[in-house]
Amino acid sequence: MDKILIATKNQGKVSDFKVLFEPKGIKVISLLDLDPIEDVEETGTTFSENATLKSEAIATLLNMPVISDDSGLEIDALNKEPGVYSARYAGLEKDDEKNIDKVLENLKGVAEKDRTARFVCAIAVSEPGKETIVEHGYCEGKILCERRGENGFGYDPIFQPDGEMRSMAELNHKEKAAISHRGNALRKLADWIEQQ
Amino acid sequence: MDKILIATKNQGKVSDFKVLFEPKGIKVISLLDLDPIEDVEETGTTFSENATLKSEAIATLLNMPVISDDSGLEIDALNKEPGVYSARYAGLEKDDEKNIDKVLENLKGVAEKDRTARFVCAIAVSEPGKETIVEHGYCEGKILCERRGENGFGYDPIFQPDGEMRSMAELNHKEKAAISHRGNALRKLADWIEQQ
Repeated sequence: MDKILIATKNQGKVSDFKVLFEPKGIKVISLLDLDPIEDVEETGTTFSENATLKSEAIATLLNMPVISDDSGLEIDALNKEPGVYSARYAGLEKDDEKNIDKVLENLKGVAEKDRTARFVCAIAVSEPGKETIVEHGYCEGKILCERRGENGFGYDPIFQPDGEMRSMAELNHKEKAAISHRGNALRKLADWIEQQ
Repeated sequence: MDKILIATKNQGKVSDFKVLFEPKGIKVISLLDLDPIEDVEETGTTFSENATLKSEAIATLLNMPVISDDSGLEIDALNKEPGVYSARYAGLEKDDEKNIDKVLENLKGVAEKDRTARFVCAIAVSEPGKETIVEHGYCEGKILCERRGENGFGYDPIFQPDGEMRSMAELNHKEKAAISHRGNALRKLADWIEQQ
């Protein structure tokens, strides 16, 4: 045995087991190590880097194939903000409504033609001993001047995909999957899987 | 690749990846599968059984050694209740104060000599292809008639270990570790590790 997983998130319990196992050269892993890296620890500057950091870390820990994804919104008039900070644009507490308010405020007075933006999704697949592959998916569109629709989450109510008269939050789940950044990344991943 | 871990707890994302991988015969695991089995799913009738259910399930999923533990309080006058239901004795919401109130209420009028009880801890170690080993630790004592002390958690304020004039919640962390059910189980596990 060179490593063992403690099925707990209790730091105190993890410490107790480390005292027992680590002097024997057995590495102790816990469920705390496997949680998706929280925003505050997402140190990458790109979606691809964040997804890769997670999938490689966990694949190494567990010695098995791992997938992770990261996604967000790039607004051209805001120098591609919020980008990797999409979930916590208005603060660490991840508040969709405050994030949307901040975007609308920052785009006040910006003309429709200059409100171009895109959702980006990066999916990383890491296998021990192999190079990590990353597939990207995009959804081009523009930022509306006010919220529309109740579906989806995040910035969906203020994002209108190219070729659509509705916001992302006015599309149903199936319509969204057909054109969304995640849907597009998943389809590329499916192609990659076919080639394996 | 025969299985892959999706580093998420988002059921929607897990489903998306299952659609891609499962037709290829690749089993999709997610962080939802690795969480300690919640109380409502702890279907065992003993601490040992609950700990083993968890450690074996996760060891099989990840093909690596896994430890899990389960513990609780057995009160003789209550037919060994709360037992495996210790955390949720007064309801599913796991409220220490309500649990203690329920014990005190159920023991009203029971004489000191009949208030014997013990904390029990079972630690299960599962390795793929090997038989699971379980170590038990115990801490004998009695149930007080009112709360005493601020340390610890759970039933500690109303449990007085044998040989002590203080409640478990009046002991400091080190004193508790020296006599507690978890401490005793950990020491047995240490002996087991020595023999490996």
